[in-house]
Amino acid sequence: MKQSIKPNTLAMPTPVWCVGSYDKNGKPNVMTIAWGGICCSAPPMLTVSLRKATYTYGSIMERGAYTVSIPSAKHAAEADYFGIASGKNSDKFAVSGLTPVRSDVVDAPYVEEFPLIFECKVVETVELGLHTQFVGEIVGIKADEDILNEKGMPMMGAVNPIVFAHATREYRGIGGVVGSGFKIGKKFME
Amino acid sequence: MKQSIKPNTLAMPTPVWCVGSYDKNGKPNVMTIAWGGICCSAPPMLTVSLRKATYTYGSIMERGAYTVSIPSAKHAAEADYFGIASGKNSDKFAVSGLTPVRSDVVDAPYVEEFPLIFECKVVETVELGLHTQFVGEIVGIKADEDILNEKGMPMMGAVNPIVFAHATREYRGIGGVVGSGFKIGKKFME
Repeated sequence: MKQSIKPNTLAMPTPVWCVGSYDKNGKPNVMTIAWGGICCSAPPMLTVSLRKATYTYGSIMERGAYTVSIPSAKHAAEADYFGIASGKNSDKFAVSGLTPVRSDVVDAPYVEEFPLIFECKVVETVELGLHTQFVGEIVGIKADEDILNEKGMPMMGAVNPIVFAHATREYRGIGGVVGSGFKIGKKFME
Repeated sequence: MKQSIKPNTLAMPTPVWCVGSYDKNGKPNVMTIAWGGICCSAPPMLTVSLRKATYTYGSIMERGAYTVSIPSAKHAAEADYFGIASGKNSDKFAVSGLTPVRSDVVDAPYVEEFPLIFECKVVETVELGLHTQFVGEIVGIKADEDILNEKGMPMMGAVNPIVFAHATREYRGIGGVVGSGFKIGKKFME
C-alpha cells in the first residue's frame, strides 16, 4: 500500500549538467541545473529549464545558444559552486580555475576540463511556470578521447557523471552495471 | 584537446522511467523511456518524449494523462521488457507479473511494485521531430513508506533507481555519495 505525498519535483535520477553561455558583454558563464534531459532523437535535442531570475536565462534568450558540459565526479565541488553562485556578480570560471572554451558551432562557451560537451541551438522556448524550458538542438558534441569506445561513442563508466538526490541534497556517482539494455527483458518474451 | 563527434543523443545520465497509460479499451499499458526529466518546479512538472509510432503515444493523446513509475534496480529486467515489447500486441502487466493500479488522481495506471510514482496531467504537447514531448503537471505522488525519510521525502538510496548508458547499452545503478549539494561548492566562495 502506497502513501500519497504532496506533488513535488522529486522524480529521479536527475542529471547534473553545467549550462554554458555568454552574457551581453561576452563574459563566459556557467550554471548547474538538474531540470533537463534528452527530448528528441531526430534531430537530436535536449532541454534545460531555468528560472527567469537566473543570469543564464537572459544570456540564452539573447544568444539563442548554450552548451551542456557534463562534469565527472571529481569536479562535483566545481559543479556545486556553479549552481550556488550567480554570473551576475561573479566570474565563475575565474574563481573555480576552470577554462572556458568558445564553441566553434554555437555562440556559447563550454568547460574544457569536463569530458563531454553538448553544443545546442535554441529551437523552442516553452514557458511553463517558475521555469522556462529551452529546447536545444544538439548541433555539436565535443569529447575527450579517453571516454570514447571503439565506435567513438562516450562510455558512461569513463565519463563518470553524477546525479543529484534532492530529498537528501546529495550528489551521487553512477554505480555498476545492472544488466544489458534490450536484452535482460527478453526473458519475458519467450 | 577535445574531439568533435557527430551530434547524437548521448547526454547522460538519462533516467529509466516507466510510463503508464490506458488504451482506448481501458487496458493498462506501460512503456520504458529514457528521454525525460523534470522541467519546472512550480507547478511541479516533468516531461516524457515518445515517438508517434508507440502505442503509448496514442493513449496519452486520448487520455491526457500518464504516470511515471520509477523502477528499482531489482526490476531492471521488467523495465527492459517494458521498453522492448509493444502494448499493441501484448499485455505487459500480465506477462511481467507486475500489478497495474488505477491512479486516484489521473486517468492512468501505475506499477504497484515500483517504489515511487508520479501522476501527471498533460499540460503541453510539443512536436519536436521524431519525438513528441509531453509536459505533465505532477498532480500526485505515491510512494512506498520505506523509501521516505523523516520529512516524508523519497531517498534516492532507498529507491535505488537505475540509469541507461546508451553507448554501451547498459543499465547502471546509482553509486555512493560524492558530496553535499549547496555545500561542497562553498569553498570557492570564501
